[in-house]
Amino acid sequence: QTIDECQALKNQPGMKLWINVDGLDRIEVIEKLGSCFKIHPLTLEDILNAGQRPKMEDYDSYIYTVLKMMLLDTENEEIVIDQVSIIIGPNYILSFQEREGDVFDLLRERLKNPASRLRKGGVDYLAYGLIDAIIDNYFLILEHFGEKIEDLEDELVRDPDPDTLKIIQKYRRDMILLRKSVWPLRELINGLQKVESELITEATQIYLRDIYDHTIQVIDSIEAFRDILASMVDVYLSSVSNRMNDIMKVLTIIATIFIPLTFIAGVYGMNFDYMPELRWHWGYPVVMLSMMLLGISMFFYFKKKRWI
Amino acid sequence: QTIDECQALKNQPGMKLWINVDGLDRIEVIEKLGSCFKIHPLTLEDILNAGQRPKMEDYDSYIYTVLKMMLLDTENEEIVIDQVSIIIGPNYILSFQEREGDVFDLLRERLKNPASRLRKGGVDYLAYGLIDAIIDNYFLILEHFGEKIEDLEDELVRDPDPDTLKIIQKYRRDMILLRKSVWPLRELINGLQKVESELITEATQIYLRDIYDHTIQVIDSIEAFRDILASMVDVYLSSVSNRMNDIMKVLTIIATIFIPLTFIAGVYGMNFDYMPELRWHWGYPVVMLSMMLLGISMFFYFKKKRWI
Amino acid sequence: QTIDECQALKNQPGMKLWINVDGLDRIEVIEKLGSCFKIHPLTLEDILNAGQRPKMEDYDSYIYTVLKMMLLDTENEEIVIDQVSIIIGPNYILSFQEREGDVFDLLRERLKNPASRLRKGGVDYLAYGLIDAIIDNYFLILEHFGEKIEDLEDELVRDPDPDTLKIIQKYRRDMILLRKSVWPLRELINGLQKVESELITEATQIYLRDIYDHTIQVIDSIEAFRDILASMVDVYLSSVSNRMNDIMKVLTIIATIFIPLTFIAGVYGMNFDYMPELRWHWGYPVVMLSMMLLGISMFFYFKKKRWI
Amino acid sequence: QTIDECQALKNQPGMKLWINVDGLDRIEVIEKLGSCFKIHPLTLEDILNAGQRPKMEDYDSYIYTVLKMMLLDTENEEIVIDQVSIIIGPNYILSFQEREGDVFDLLRERLKNPASRLRKGGVDYLAYGLIDAIIDNYFLILEHFGEKIEDLEDELVRDPDPDTLKIIQKYRRDMILLRKSVWPLRELINGLQKVESELITEATQIYLRDIYDHTIQVIDSIEAFRDILASMVDVYLSSVSNRMNDIMKVLTIIATIFIPLTFIAGVYGMNFDYMPELRWHWGYPVVMLSMMLLGISMFFYFKKKRWI
Amino acid sequence: QTIDECQALKNQPGMKLWINVDGLDRIEVIEKLGSCFKIHPLTLEDILNAGQRPKMEDYDSYIYTVLKMMLLDTENEEIVIDQVSIIIGPNYILSFQEREGDVFDLLRERLKNPASRLRKGGVDYLAYGLIDAIIDNYFLILEHFGEKIEDLEDELVRDPDPDTLKIIQKYRRDMILLRKSVWPLRELINGLQKVESELITEATQIYLRDIYDHTIQVIDSIEAFRDILASMVDVYLSSVSNRMNDIMKVLTIIATIFIPLTFIAGVYGMNFDYMPELRWHWGYPVVMLSMMLLGISMFFYFKKKRWI
Repeated sequence: QTIDECQALKNQPGMKLWINVDGLDRIEVIEKLGSCFKIHPLTLEDILNAGQRPKMEDYDSYIYTVLKMMLLDTENEEIVIDQVSIIIGPNYILSFQEREGDVFDLLRERLKNPASRLRKGGVDYLAYGLIDAIIDNYFLILEHFGEKIEDLEDELVRDPDPDTLKIIQKYRRDMILLRKSVWPLRELINGLQKVESELITEATQIYLRDIYDHTIQVIDSIEAFRDILASMVDVYLSSVSNRMNDIMKVLTIIATIFIPLTFIAGVYGMNFDYMPELRWHWGYPVVMLSMMLLGISMFFYFKKKRWI
Repeated sequence: QTIDECQALKNQPGMKLWINVDGLDRIEVIEKLGSCFKIHPLTLEDILNAGQRPKMEDYDSYIYTVLKMMLLDTENEEIVIDQVSIIIGPNYILSFQEREGDVFDLLRERLKNPASRLRKGGVDYLAYGLIDAIIDNYFLILEHFGEKIEDLEDELVRDPDPDTLKIIQKYRRDMILLRKSVWPLRELINGLQKVESELITEATQIYLRDIYDHTIQVIDSIEAFRDILASMVDVYLSSVSNRMNDIMKVLTIIATIFIPLTFIAGVYGMNFDYMPELRWHWGYPVVMLSMMLLGISMFFYFKKKRWI
Repeated sequence: QTIDECQALKNQPGMKLWINVDGLDRIEVIEKLGSCFKIHPLTLEDILNAGQRPKMEDYDSYIYTVLKMMLLDTENEEIVIDQVSIIIGPNYILSFQEREGDVFDLLRERLKNPASRLRKGGVDYLAYGLIDAIIDNYFLILEHFGEKIEDLEDELVRDPDPDTLKIIQKYRRDMILLRKSVWPLRELINGLQKVESELITEATQIYLRDIYDHTIQVIDSIEAFRDILASMVDVYLSSVSNRMNDIMKVLTIIATIFIPLTFIAGVYGMNFDYMPELRWHWGYPVVMLSMMLLGISMFFYFKKKRWI
Repeated sequence: QTIDECQALKNQPGMKLWINVDGLDRIEVIEKLGSCFKIHPLTLEDILNAGQRPKMEDYDSYIYTVLKMMLLDTENEEIVIDQVSIIIGPNYILSFQEREGDVFDLLRERLKNPASRLRKGGVDYLAYGLIDAIIDNYFLILEHFGEKIEDLEDELVRDPDPDTLKIIQKYRRDMILLRKSVWPLRELINGLQKVESELITEATQIYLRDIYDHTIQVIDSIEAFRDILASMVDVYLSSVSNRMNDIMKVLTIIATIFIPLTFIAGVYGMNFDYMPELRWHWGYPVVMLSMMLLGISMFFYFKKKRWI
Repeated sequence: QTIDECQALKNQPGMKLWINVDGLDRIEVIEKLGSCFKIHPLTLEDILNAGQRPKMEDYDSYIYTVLKMMLLDTENEEIVIDQVSIIIGPNYILSFQEREGDVFDLLRERLKNPASRLRKGGVDYLAYGLIDAIIDNYFLILEHFGEKIEDLEDELVRDPDPDTLKIIQKYRRDMILLRKSVWPLRELINGLQKVESELITEATQIYLRDIYDHTIQVIDSIEAFRDILASMVDVYLSSVSNRMNDIMKVLTIIATIFIPLTFIAGVYGMNFDYMPELRWHWGYPVVMLSMMLLGISMFFYFKKKRWI
């Protein structure tokens, strides 16, 4: 709205600015801001192009970082990835998001309190706050996945069906996605810690070390989830094939017991003129009994061999 | 054509030259250029040999880079790989391609505009432009693959058949190929960034950093595609075996239900003289009913056991 | 209890303090300690948050380390992970645990002996003692797993059942967990060795090298267990499918032998008016004999082909 | 033969010597050479022991390199590995081979031309020539494999049989072998490039860089072949199991259609006195028709379910 | 025995001592030696604790190395691992073994020869000799495995049975064990090469480089064996499933051919009053002939489809 006042604001001494732009389609706003704060064209291009890899770039007069914000669309059980660009200048912070997210809401709340460290600290501390909010959000998402995976494990033991596998595969892909967004973060924060720039004060360094640890934790969790999901596929496949094997075994045993019996019945169904057994009075009950005995002994033989 | 004027052109002050050679069979042209610009014989050999690995070599008086240009042959769904050699001299760029490609067309268009940065910048900026055009082209190809893979995933869920697997395998091989061409790029651009040569000005470095990021993005995408394709093979195999199992289960159950019934029919088909049941008036309906009951109870037993 | 005396104690010259806090819910105690010893708020936050990754941080006036203590709940066969934070100050050690564990009991015993090296050494030696106690405990747990895995291997050879697989999977997950806790330890101890701080004396360095070796040993063992467990899954799956194959083979062979015989019986059960064999006096015995011969020769054919 | 003149030859100023020894059983020759050129006993041991890993060692007065030369025994389709040791002295090259190979023949040809760079360059350039000849030979072998693998792929699609798998496995093992010989080459040439010795002139460095690139290319190809062969095993296994599944499905469906029909036939083969259907005039055709209808409807049901 | 004279011996000028202790249960001997040669308590602890990871530690006044000696128990086909600790002092070598092994026998033989390099060299050369003897022993063991694996491969092709798999798995585990013992050796010898201590003279460095190469060779062989064994499991599984498939296919085809024939026989076994075919004179031979034709044509159909 009052983009045009930016020049005035920027030069006001002791001023600390945080400008947040939601929606990357407001190109003219972004370009005005860019020209006001002398942002390099490559940076503007990166801000507008939503497919950036998380990275940190030092342009002497400002530091440009781009991160991925994850939002959980709880309805569709889908992760929505949103690109957040943060420009850390000497006395201003510019942040750009695709969508209006609620990750920064808590931060805004705290900013309203004039005694808060966020307010008293430099703009680099605010930048830390923004990155911290994004990374803390990852933990929420991982927690959500952790619960879902535990549920899935119970289901896997109780009653595995093909849908279980589909969900596992979906989670595996989500992990590939998450990983792609989180791995570069390590480098990013490392870069912020090592950057030889006056924009990041030493007091903030200790906080950056803290979010570096958090990033490693997130990465560790993702890798552990990947391992667990991979082993779940194995469990699923082996439990499905177990079930299948058990069924086939029982069915085959039933067939195997009855086929020889049917053969015997077939024999005495032959129409030869001279089949003495057919004439015997006790022929029928004897044959029936032998068949029963044969069936039962086969059953117990299979039982003894632990095939049933 | 006017290769022989090159000596004159080369020494003209303030001159910036871009010579593009299509077709590596025009050996004498390349050799003349080589002797005019004092290109090392090893470089000429590398230019002519199409199986080079992307690399960057600093020969003091010029920098030699060789890249792979990817073209998508949309008819046969095949990737055509074309080797592009770029020689960055103090005031000239030589580029060599196997085939006449259209990747540089946009660049040529922009060069016609005298006010463009390409025209005003040094030859190193032009070299950046060439490499950038090649890498940007990778994104197009990856996008194409991304769409194909998504289609494939739908197909995998809807109706997997052996051809699906063949296509997956084809894509996996394409990824191996792509990977082989793209991985060394990282090193290449890193080399360009670190080279201690006056041929690459500092102003261009910032642009090299940008294409370095793009290369990492391409690599990340290829690795993600590889992961996804590998998991698709798993899904395919498990869904095929699921289908197969379901079919076999149903068929086996049909057989299992009828085999005991056939046995009973066989029993009453025996020709013993003394089989009292055969004489009973209600014998036949009773046996038929029992068989029906047996069949139905087996069916429900299997149903209850969740085998059907 | 007498937290408030801490200020006095802390400044008493020649004093060496070890304060151990069990239970992270006693927040006010921890905060009082924090303010007394001037602990950075980030450290306090890390102490209270049980999900920390093992790490070492140098805050000039003290060194903060956080480790995972493993306790084996022998009843449920479960590993209980407990977070231990150790703060090494110039003349004090603060340690924080979630649960009251018995890992440090031996240490306390040794501390009672006034001549012990623990008592005479600096606080850094005591810190070494604490970390050493935790890592030594890992060996106990690994030994426990080693025995369990050996038992499992015997079982796998003797009589594999689906439960065996479940236990293998459980152990694999336990290993993932253990790994997550132990890998970062390497870095942690490395950090302690390389820290440029007067808090760690050179005499203690040699002991740190020792526990570094122990950590590597623990990691090696975990990796070896992972390899062994992974190969056990292969053995399990192949032995299960072997069993299954053997059963199906036998059953199929029984069916295969009887089906042609049943066919023959069926032929002579046909009711054609003119079937000369039926009239022959020796028809029945001849057919029975041929069937027996056919059955036996099929049996031996299968035997010779090594199908049985 | 005239080994004893070596002392004289060696000290002749401006002399450049290349002595090639075929056959490692001529121990006394090798030892005489060793004492003449003051070769370290460890080097002589390495030359004679054919199981060396490719490596480069700097013994101040000379550089010792050992490589693996690959020869393709086209008759048995086998790779023969031959160890080549090269000693680069200040004015002499000693090379040792197990077998008389033809890899160096081209080099000898070029050496006969007095104007060749090989003749005019120093002995280090000749050493480069030897190593280059060996590495170029790898490309021939890889090309051979490339063609074989392509043939194999066609066969895999057309008509996979167990022999195909055996050949794939053989190639995989060949790749393991090749890899073992080629991977250390990277280090070797890197060592030659970085060695701080006057034996390798700067002019030769540029050529070493070239063979370094070739080595990387060879490694890349081997890794790509390994990936392709691994994926071919997957394709083979899945296509075999596909074929098998298709066969079993058809056979099971035939059985499944006929088993209920056989049951019906069995029912009307029962000998009950009172089976009214048997007396009906149209009984037989009606039953035959119903059986036909049942069979056909089952067939179309399976067809509709896409089981056939 | 004469441990107490050690003090005297130790200080005798020009003396070079090698004390070898077999059996780690002779604790008091080890402790006496320890106090005589001023060995650090941590070192003594490591010597007595048989589960050490191979490592090298520099305690200024001496260097401590611990290695694993492998002995092949040819009766049980088992590898026995024995821990060897070597302490390299300024003029003494102490070595400690669990069992009396024969690996050092050759060395002792050579030491008896007063002109041997072992005798004339410093104690560091003797230490090299000890380590070299241990590593050379690895080659023997690997050779043994190499032969066993080749035998196994033949067996795998000729006649795979479940025992083959068990042996493969056993070898895989042996490789995991070997690997665990050998990998750290690389670091160990590297450490010895880089140690800034006067205990290792420069003349010995060249020999250390040699055993470094040997270690790498051992590691390469182990990795290659691991790859080969892993691929053998694949071959085994696929050849077992091939055999199984072939059997099942044949059996199923037999069943499939006879089931329709049995159905036909069943049809003419029905007892309908009006079945005109039964009355025909040629009914029986015609039906028999049709059944034969049907069976043969099915057989050839399957043959043509290449199912048999």
